[in-house]
Amino acid sequence: MTPGDIKKLLEKIPEWEVATDDGISRLQRTFSFKDFKSAIAFTNKVGELAEAEQHHPKLVTEWGKVTVVWWTHSVNGLHQNDFFMAAKTSELHAD
Amino acid sequence: MTPGDIKKLLEKIPEWEVATDDGISRLQRTFSFKDFKSAIAFTNKVGELAEAEQHHPKLVTEWGKVTVVWWTHSVNGLHQNDFFMAAKTSELHAD
Repeated sequence: MTPGDIKKLLEKIPEWEVATDDGISRLQRTFSFKDFKSAIAFTNKVGELAEAEQHHPKLVTEWGKVTVVWWTHSVNGLHQNDFFMAAKTSELHAD
Repeated sequence: MTPGDIKKLLEKIPEWEVATDDGISRLQRTFSFKDFKSAIAFTNKVGELAEAEQHHPKLVTEWGKVTVVWWTHSVNGLHQNDFFMAAKTSELHAD
């Protein structure tokens, strides 16, 4: 993906940011919850989505928050599919 | 806890390391699994332990691995209880 492609798709999921870690661009968003139990419930919902789509994020679960990070190993960065998964993740949170 | 206390307790859980993040000492260990599903199952087991003990770690779930990080907010670092929770976490993995 070109920087232009990324910018354009990012406009559709404005709550997400591109974070670079280990030189790899990733889509990242932190979701807030009222306690640990609600946070881990969301981790599981995203986990089910990941299994269904066979594309797996990094999920950082803490008391009251979950940070979800999407990227594509095979391209060492972002693929259109990551933007799709990010949008789906936001939908899960909105449900 | 003094550095001597930490060293002594760390000898009892040699698979764990003290990692410093944001100037806060934390106990950290990465557990390996054969896939994402097994990793998230372990995340849930540690989550149940956390709820039972009302002490909550940071859980980083990825394809094939879970990193568990224990520390105590109220002391901005390590408390004896974190070593107890780390040992319990290792037992869950051994089960």
